[in-house]
Amino acid sequence: MLSALDLARRIEAGDLTPAAVIDLCAAAIAAREGDVGAFAALDVESARRQAQAAGLGARPLHGLPVGVKDIFDTVDFPTEFGTPIYAGNRPRGDAALVALIRRAGGIVLGKTVSTELAFLNPGKTRNPHDLGRSPGGSSSGSAAGVAAGMLPIAVGSQTGGSIIRPASYCGVAALKPSYRLLPTAGMKHFAVYLDTAGVFAAGVADVAFAAAAITGRDLRIDRTEADAPRIGLARSNVWGEASADMQTAVETAAKRAQAAGAQLVEPAWPAALTEAYHAHGVIQDYEAFRTLAFEYDRHRNRLSPILRDMLDKAAHVSADAYDAARRITKRARQVLADLMADIDVLLTPSAPSAAPAPETTGPATFNRLWTLMGTPCVNVPGLADTAGLPLGVQVVGRFGRDREALLAARFVEGALAGVK
Amino acid sequence: MLSALDLARRIEAGDLTPAAVIDLCAAAIAAREGDVGAFAALDVESARRQAQAAGLGARPLHGLPVGVKDIFDTVDFPTEFGTPIYAGNRPRGDAALVALIRRAGGIVLGKTVSTELAFLNPGKTRNPHDLGRSPGGSSSGSAAGVAAGMLPIAVGSQTGGSIIRPASYCGVAALKPSYRLLPTAGMKHFAVYLDTAGVFAAGVADVAFAAAAITGRDLRIDRTEADAPRIGLARSNVWGEASADMQTAVETAAKRAQAAGAQLVEPAWPAALTEAYHAHGVIQDYEAFRTLAFEYDRHRNRLSPILRDMLDKAAHVSADAYDAARRITKRARQVLADLMADIDVLLTPSAPSAAPAPETTGPATFNRLWTLMGTPCVNVPGLADTAGLPLGVQVVGRFGRDREALLAARFVEGALAGVK
Repeated sequence: MLSALDLARRIEAGDLTPAAVIDLCAAAIAAREGDVGAFAALDVESARRQAQAAGLGARPLHGLPVGVKDIFDTVDFPTEFGTPIYAGNRPRGDAALVALIRRAGGIVLGKTVSTELAFLNPGKTRNPHDLGRSPGGSSSGSAAGVAAGMLPIAVGSQTGGSIIRPASYCGVAALKPSYRLLPTAGMKHFAVYLDTAGVFAAGVADVAFAAAAITGRDLRIDRTEADAPRIGLARSNVWGEASADMQTAVETAAKRAQAAGAQLVEPAWPAALTEAYHAHGVIQDYEAFRTLAFEYDRHRNRLSPILRDMLDKAAHVSADAYDAARRITKRARQVLADLMADIDVLLTPSAPSAAPAPETTGPATFNRLWTLMGTPCVNVPGLADTAGLPLGVQVVGRFGRDREALLAARFVEGALAGVK
Repeated sequence: MLSALDLARRIEAGDLTPAAVIDLCAAAIAAREGDVGAFAALDVESARRQAQAAGLGARPLHGLPVGVKDIFDTVDFPTEFGTPIYAGNRPRGDAALVALIRRAGGIVLGKTVSTELAFLNPGKTRNPHDLGRSPGGSSSGSAAGVAAGMLPIAVGSQTGGSIIRPASYCGVAALKPSYRLLPTAGMKHFAVYLDTAGVFAAGVADVAFAAAAITGRDLRIDRTEADAPRIGLARSNVWGEASADMQTAVETAAKRAQAAGAQLVEPAWPAALTEAYHAHGVIQDYEAFRTLAFEYDRHRNRLSPILRDMLDKAAHVSADAYDAARRITKRARQVLADLMADIDVLLTPSAPSAAPAPETTGPATFNRLWTLMGTPCVNVPGLADTAGLPLGVQVVGRFGRDREALLAARFVEGALAGVK
């Protein structure tokens, strides 16, 4: 994989040019894209031209190429949202996140494959670790593109588990930041209350570098010696749905972090969080039926059966049920804040298991609660199941404390280095 | 003006057809649009064809025509956001709100004029009550189109004061509902944390009818006998910026409501709300500099001086200042909820005065705090200044209690009926 931070440092030092990084990506794309299919659209020649811009190497992203999930508007690429309904759609402007990437000196190398309208119906992308398996979704191409070494940075989005789950399956780091840390204007929404933009890169420090460069916020962690974090092991209400290998992975991560100096506790799981877990689907369904009203009402027969069926059912979710789910959410956020008063992060699975067969993109079981809570989540790669497929562990921080979450995730990542 | 509720009832009773309503609008448009300039795009013939659809009269909006502010995507009209940067832009889908209007059996008659990117630079619209005055902004065409009798319903949006202020200037009712009651997906954003979609119509019951039909929520108030509300007169931190006529209007509304049976109190104004008032600009500026990154970075010289200057300054708002403003907001929301524990609504000016000269769209002085609080606001028309120009009074409800706010607003409206 291409380390964004390492590339940026070499550009900063004058040992590498932005154009040479495009060449690295181009070589990986030539070797892997035919198998992996991470890109919905790609323009290497345009990227090469952009890489010649004066002063690019001195800007926050140092001219690094970025892959953008194909639900964000781009003025220079088609933006098709993973559905034939929008085939050939050419927006007149960039989404805010895309414009911020360019403002920071990033080069949009291509659009990465999204599942259909960022729901569950798979796209063409395959898992770089095993082409017979799913890369996860809905940010399939962003996770796979980084995993295959074709991109140092990619952006995606999560409404249920669309960032952390594919990162886990593909063995890359990812940050689903605090709700709205990254702007969503100009993104194709699914459920506004949940939709969160995030970042994929090779390791935790790479993700932190990219998020810092795009936002201009103090999120870099590579020049800091962090204190050992206080970690809460979260055997949540869905712990039993994790595979034996995944349970072992999380417990291994916890033990290794503890051995490296972290405080480890296992707080009781509050019933309010289990209640919020179930509220997620109510909110997602109610909003999606409205957010996708145009596609459902005008193009119903061009939707996949899985999306159409979900929306058929979502039509029956009442405003009262939705409002009740919002109240449950509000209470649960306070309960979670109280739970984490003396804990920096929670440690929990990123997904139920390693990547499934390609007919599905896997379930968001271990992600939806955290999306609803709006808290920062980091996928820490480095472990594998007995078949050798990547297993990610998830570090969940406090709302608005994204840097602390990244520091703790890097601590866990470091503690796992070398573990097989 | 055309009463949406009255038209809907006549269609329901079989005394009027949706096509006949289009004819009413067309006649008003022929008479007034040349002077008023409420529409950015208009298609009466398409509306006439759509009005023939079977069963339309039985649907929630009964086939009524709706004007849509030109910052919401529409698949069948250009969507230009009030700026030449997007001249001729033709979205491939409808914004969620537009799709919900059509789903409810509304007909989009045209796009209404927005100021440039929903900020302050005026469009072509003039105030129907005095063509030498501003209609207010940024939802200029929606307010003026209803005021001129060309539309029974229009939708707009508010980030500072872009719904309630033009409604006040144009003498129409309007609802800026609780944050996110109406969906914003597919709308051109300015500051996501603040951007709120809302509705204009002739009177409060008309607005409630439209909001109920579009959302499917229990918001209608026309078949209810409401209890007299508990009203808090809010001489807020900006009370001194209201003209003598506006202060008199609000006091008159308070006294009339009290005479009609309302309880009237005047709670002390909490310092936390004054603090939040000042936080609004920090949040708006910080977000706008990011939300409009594409327009600012690529088309700076096509922005108006007033928008460009704002964004130039906004570049210097720090993330720390923004985060602090968000914390101030969170605290203020709790203070406001406590303040209103025993009050149904606050009563306060909708704008500092009647409509200003057309060089500006007027200030959002009396609106920005409530947009930030996310609470429902209703402009109640019916009063006028000494020159005879409309003055609106603003009824502010509790978050999520939009129906209660509408009921109280109707009570005030009724108490004012006949007052000159």
